[in-house]
Amino acid sequence: MTGPRYTPLARSLPATVPFVGPETQERARGAPFAARLGANESVFGPSPKAIAALQGAAGDIWMYGDPENHDLRAALAAHHGVTPDHVVVGEGIDGLLGYLVRLLVGPGDHVVTSDGAYPTFNYHVAGYGGTLHKVPYVNDREDPASLFTKAADVDAKLVYLANPDNPMGSWHSGADIVAALDGLPEGCLLVLDEAYVECAPEGTAAPVDADDPRLIRMRTFSKVHGLAGARVGYGLAAPDLVLAFNKVRNHFGMNRAAQAAALAALGDTDWLRHVQDQIDAARTRIGDIARENGLAPLPSATNFTAIDCGADGVFAKAVLDGLIERGIFVRMPFAAPQNRCIRVSCGTPADLDALAAALPEALAAARRRSPEC
Amino acid sequence: MTGPRYTPLARSLPATVPFVGPETQERARGAPFAARLGANESVFGPSPKAIAALQGAAGDIWMYGDPENHDLRAALAAHHGVTPDHVVVGEGIDGLLGYLVRLLVGPGDHVVTSDGAYPTFNYHVAGYGGTLHKVPYVNDREDPASLFTKAADVDAKLVYLANPDNPMGSWHSGADIVAALDGLPEGCLLVLDEAYVECAPEGTAAPVDADDPRLIRMRTFSKVHGLAGARVGYGLAAPDLVLAFNKVRNHFGMNRAAQAAALAALGDTDWLRHVQDQIDAARTRIGDIARENGLAPLPSATNFTAIDCGADGVFAKAVLDGLIERGIFVRMPFAAPQNRCIRVSCGTPADLDALAAALPEALAAARRRSPEC
Repeated sequence: MTGPRYTPLARSLPATVPFVGPETQERARGAPFAARLGANESVFGPSPKAIAALQGAAGDIWMYGDPENHDLRAALAAHHGVTPDHVVVGEGIDGLLGYLVRLLVGPGDHVVTSDGAYPTFNYHVAGYGGTLHKVPYVNDREDPASLFTKAADVDAKLVYLANPDNPMGSWHSGADIVAALDGLPEGCLLVLDEAYVECAPEGTAAPVDADDPRLIRMRTFSKVHGLAGARVGYGLAAPDLVLAFNKVRNHFGMNRAAQAAALAALGDTDWLRHVQDQIDAARTRIGDIARENGLAPLPSATNFTAIDCGADGVFAKAVLDGLIERGIFVRMPFAAPQNRCIRVSCGTPADLDALAAALPEALAAARRRSPEC
Repeated sequence: MTGPRYTPLARSLPATVPFVGPETQERARGAPFAARLGANESVFGPSPKAIAALQGAAGDIWMYGDPENHDLRAALAAHHGVTPDHVVVGEGIDGLLGYLVRLLVGPGDHVVTSDGAYPTFNYHVAGYGGTLHKVPYVNDREDPASLFTKAADVDAKLVYLANPDNPMGSWHSGADIVAALDGLPEGCLLVLDEAYVECAPEGTAAPVDADDPRLIRMRTFSKVHGLAGARVGYGLAAPDLVLAFNKVRNHFGMNRAAQAAALAALGDTDWLRHVQDQIDAARTRIGDIARENGLAPLPSATNFTAIDCGADGVFAKAVLDGLIERGIFVRMPFAAPQNRCIRVSCGTPADLDALAAALPEALAAARRRSPEC
C-alpha cells in the first residue's frame, strides 16, 4: 500500500516550524522557565475586561463564532475611522499572512522581505511556492527604499515590511513609510506589519488612506493587548482586498471567546495606557541591565529590546544558551549582522530580576568559550 | 494605482462562505433566534470541567499556545491507543481539511465526494484548484463503493466520506467501512470524517490500524464535546501523513485556552455519557414532533435528525423559511433528493417545545404556497 500522493510543492517542503515553542524547550530541559521573555508576549496580561469577557463567554463556547466577525469588525472600523469593509479579522497575523500569500503567490512569483525579518512570513511564501528575495537591514532597520527597489527589480507581487521591526525593535515614522510608498512598484502589494505599533512613539503608525490599494496593514491583539493565546489579528485594507480573503479563509476559524475578548480589550484604553507604561519601564530596566553588563541595548519601539552582545552570532548564541540554561527564555535574530544581539521581551520586575541575576553568569560562560569577546 | 495581482486561481474563485452563520440571519431578521438548532452544535454545552478549564486559562491567555499541542496529543493518543505521532491537532476539522487538501490537491488533481456532503470540504478543493467529482447518495447514505469506484475512474488523489453522515444522519458500521477500503484505489487517500461518531451506535467508529497509509480519520471537539466555538479538531493517521501537516499548518494557530478545554473535555467521560443521553432523548422527541406533523424523521447516528418533509426541495425550503421566520434556526441539505428534508439539531426540551409550536404553522404556510404538497 502506498501513501498519499502529495503535490510536488508539498513534497519539496521541509516539515519545519518557524519558531520552536518555549514549552518544547521546557520539556527538553525538564523544568519550566523562570522568566518567559522570548516570544514578545505581554507578561502584563490582557485587560481585566478581556479576561472577564473570556470567562463570561465560556458557557457559550458550544456555539461557533460569528463567521463574519461582525461586532469586532464594527468596533475596529470605528476605532480606525474606516468601514467594516476595510477590516478582515483572522487567526492572528500569522493566519492572515498565510491567506494573503495564498491569494497572491504561486510558483514563479516573487516576493521581497528583509534578511532576518519575520520567519513565519517566509514560511508562508515557501509554502505556496514563491521565490523569496531578501535585502539587508540598513543600520538595524528594515529599509523601505531597498525593499521597494528590489521589488521593482524582481517584479515582486508582494513585499513585507514590519514597522516597528521585529527582531530589532527599530522603526520609521509613519509619514516616512507613506512617503516611501511612491517607490513601491505598480502591481506590488505592501504588507505593512504593525504588530507592535501600539508600543511605538506617536506618529509611527502609517497615516494611510483606507482605500489605498497598494498596501494592507496588519494589526494584532497578541502584543500590547496581551491576547497571544487567543489568536486574533486583523488587516486594514481597501475593500476589494478585504473581500478577497473570503475566497480562502477558514470562515468558522475564529474562537468565539476570543472574539469577545478582543472586543473588550479594544475598548479598555486605560489598560492599554497601563501596559504602555509597563513596557516603558521594562525597556528602561532591560537597558540598564544590559549596560551594567557592558552590553549595548538598542532603541526600541516595541515590547522587547535587542541587546547587542558586542561580537558575532556565535557569541550571542552562547549568551542566549546560557540564559536558557538558567531558566530565562529569550530568542535572538536569525541573520547577520542582527544576530550579534539577543532579543529580550519586556517582563515584570520579577522577570527582569531573574534576567539581571542570570545575565552576568551567562556572559561569563560565553566568554569562557570565546575568550576574545 | 492598480490593486494586487492575485493568482489566476484566486481570481477565479468566488468570495463565498460555505455556510451563512446564524448571527448573520439574526442581524437580517432583527431578532435573535428562540432556538439554535441549525449548526449541529451541542446545546447541552461542554463538560463543566471544560468550562472550568477555559475560565482557569483566561489569565494565561497572554501566552501563545504550545505549537506542538503536546499535552492534548498525548491524551488523545492514550485515548485512541496510538502514539502522539499518529495525532495532528488543528483549528477544527475545517482547518485540518484545508491543510490536507493543500498537501494533496492542486490544479489538475481529482477529488471525489458525495453530492450533498460537506460543503466546506468542497470549498477547500475548489480553493486549491482541484476538480471535484460527486456521486449520489444511495438510500440517503454516502456510499463507499460508489465513491471508491469513481475515485478509480478519475484517478482521484483524495476521497471524502463522512460516517456518520452529515446532513442525513445515516451511517455504516465501522467494520463495513474497513472492508470497503479494499476497493479504494492505490494512491488515493480517504479522509474519513467521524465528527459525529460519538453520537453513533457502538461499532460505528472504523476499527482502523493506526499505521494504515490509506486514510486519515477526522475527529472534533465541536460536536458531542460541545466546544464548537473553541475550534479544536484532530486527525488520526499514519505518522508520515501527520508529519506532513507540519509543512503547511499554522503552528501557532491554536487557542491556548481551547487546548486546555479539549484536554478537560476528553477526560470527562461522565459528561460524554450525559450528553449522549440528552441526544438520544432529543432525537426521540424530534422524531415525535415530526410524526405528529405527518412528516417522517430519518434514523440518525448524529446529534441531529433529518426530517423528510414529503415533497421536493422547494417545499422543504418553504418549511425551513417558515421555521426561520418563527425564530427556529435550522438548515437543510443542499442537494436532491436529500433536500426533501430539513435538518434539525438536538435541542433542549425548551428548544424542542419551540420547534413543536412553530412547525405546524411553518408547514401550514408552506402548504398554502404549494397546495399540492
